[in-house]
Amino acid sequence: MRKISESTVRRLSLYLRFLEHFAAQGQTTISSAELARRGGTTSAQVRKDLSFFGSFGKRGLGYSVSELTARIRDILGLRRTYRVVLVGAGRIGSALVQYPGFRQRGFHVAAIYDKDPKKIGSRWNGLVVRDIRHLDGDLGKEPSDIAIVVTPAESAQEVVDRLVHAGVKAILNFAPVQLAVPADVVVKSVNMALELETLSFALANR
Amino acid sequence: MRKISESTVRRLSLYLRFLEHFAAQGQTTISSAELARRGGTTSAQVRKDLSFFGSFGKRGLGYSVSELTARIRDILGLRRTYRVVLVGAGRIGSALVQYPGFRQRGFHVAAIYDKDPKKIGSRWNGLVVRDIRHLDGDLGKEPSDIAIVVTPAESAQEVVDRLVHAGVKAILNFAPVQLAVPADVVVKSVNMALELETLSFALANR
Repeated sequence: MRKISESTVRRLSLYLRFLEHFAAQGQTTISSAELARRGGTTSAQVRKDLSFFGSFGKRGLGYSVSELTARIRDILGLRRTYRVVLVGAGRIGSALVQYPGFRQRGFHVAAIYDKDPKKIGSRWNGLVVRDIRHLDGDLGKEPSDIAIVVTPAESAQEVVDRLVHAGVKAILNFAPVQLAVPADVVVKSVNMALELETLSFALANR
Repeated sequence: MRKISESTVRRLSLYLRFLEHFAAQGQTTISSAELARRGGTTSAQVRKDLSFFGSFGKRGLGYSVSELTARIRDILGLRRTYRVVLVGAGRIGSALVQYPGFRQRGFHVAAIYDKDPKKIGSRWNGLVVRDIRHLDGDLGKEPSDIAIVVTPAESAQEVVDRLVHAGVKAILNFAPVQLAVPADVVVKSVNMALELETLSFALANR
């Protein structure tokens, strides 16, 4: 398989959302033009994105909604569920735990950790916040593929080192810091100020 | 100026963070190699990113930290402050309002709106949540360049139409929906489930 860029992966995620929406409305086929219109891109881009995974669709008939949905779910690794641990029981963590989109997609937040005694033991959306010192032992008993790190910048690398040591292979990082991880671990960082900076850049360079 | 890709803009934001960190430690020059190491990229990429904006740095001496900081702040549109309005006083909104990185960067959340009578009038980080029906009038009196939209999917487009009509030119969107805006308005969408899907994709395609 050719190398797939992150922007292609993001568009595939979007197409999947539109396909699910169409399926819920009883639509059975969809054209590249319709996916393009919804996704704010071109038909050519849609066809190129989907061509990465072999031949889909029939000229003039479009794509089968169910077939394309299954194929994209497969590509995105969504045929299974993921056990997710969250480290950092602050405001962003609170918002994330209750985010319905995670569970719908098969991402189950199974445990929350913090080091603040005031937070440890409190209930969050049915989960009890656990002391961070149990992290390694818990992961030894119940491994997780994905961790969400919402700690302050200064503790993030230490937490990530422990997660990686315990076998976590993918990290969604909200701490404003560049993390060092081994080559077989993938990190995706989300930085809200940085998102706003792409907007200020656009405003300044119109 | 050549067209600058979003990934370049994101790296510039990162470089700026590292530069500020170096400046705080009293460092006056920095090499492309050091910026690359911090940013998880290559010296060649750093030089290419910075070359977009003319010639910087001296061979063997590196870049002046203060000069490069000023230049990147200029490029990113951070020489000024931005008045930001936030629509949707839910959990993510609550996390965002208190996010220290915004104010440090010059993004001032100046008003919060919601349509829920239980939320209207409540205090949030020194701001009082206002009834969404005041949005248009308020923006007429005090224009904002940037809005953050954290509404449910079904209300997002209507809110965005009102924001655009009131002169907002840049929108950070957390609603899981593709927004339609005029060509002179820039939208940046953040979707947490989509971020996790880039991780599941990476796990499934190793």
